[in-house]
Amino acid sequence: MRYFEDFQPGDVSEHGPHVVSREEIIAFATQFDPQPFHLSDEAARDSIFGGLVASGWHTASLCHRLLVDSFLGQTSSMGSPGLDELRWLKPVRPGDTLHVRVEVVSATPSRSKPDRGAIKLRMEVRNQKDEVVMTELANVLFGRRP
Amino acid sequence: MRYFEDFQPGDVSEHGPHVVSREEIIAFATQFDPQPFHLSDEAARDSIFGGLVASGWHTASLCHRLLVDSFLGQTSSMGSPGLDELRWLKPVRPGDTLHVRVEVVSATPSRSKPDRGAIKLRMEVRNQKDEVVMTELANVLFGRRP
Repeated sequence: MRYFEDFQPGDVSEHGPHVVSREEIIAFATQFDPQPFHLSDEAARDSIFGGLVASGWHTASLCHRLLVDSFLGQTSSMGSPGLDELRWLKPVRPGDTLHVRVEVVSATPSRSKPDRGAIKLRMEVRNQKDEVVMTELANVLFGRRP
Repeated sequence: MRYFEDFQPGDVSEHGPHVVSREEIIAFATQFDPQPFHLSDEAARDSIFGGLVASGWHTASLCHRLLVDSFLGQTSSMGSPGLDELRWLKPVRPGDTLHVRVEVVSATPSRSKPDRGAIKLRMEVRNQKDEVVMTELANVLFGRRP
């Protein structure tokens, strides 16, 4: 189990890969983002994207899943109060392979709650061409070592 | 069809409701956020939340769906470059009824691309007790009237 104390500013880790399928792009979009460019190759062809692209919320959720699997899962994570600077920089298309790079930006003990601290994480999602497709700057609360 | 020109700073609209079910909380978490407090009542009981709560990414995706259904769906939306100030302020629990309030903050024509403009939207997601559970400040690109 990793606690708040186990994260140091400058720590970098890599997570993934995840290969994005056409089926999962359409399934996510059908439930959460039914805009034409997320729903079918035909409708997407005439859009500004020129073909099917994943919902930005899908990319963010996939990034989070990769993080839970190999980063947050075995920690004292207590959830997140929020994030800033979420940017969708390049389209994510069927067959793209995504990796997430996480850098610890800061680690701040809570002033009011001595059992926890906030870690600021800068995340970059890259595709198989090493293009950055998404970035975010997230806060996550972690329990301190008991 | 609503175009960039049809949005004015100060415009406010309300969207929803959506009733969040235990089943959809668990289904989303199983796919994208398999942390104990999102996966089962039993595991969540011993967490800091004291019971099952929706993944923040689920709440954000549900908010987006409400927006597509009654706001973005019949517009010239060209997708979003990103957002800031995403905040998860209160837990979302099974049975909660969510509404989204959207306010147009600004409307800025693109300097480089005369066919589009960026609209900044402040969103508030509230539950049935009128508590704000999530906020965000999003940018969305809209095509200009042809």
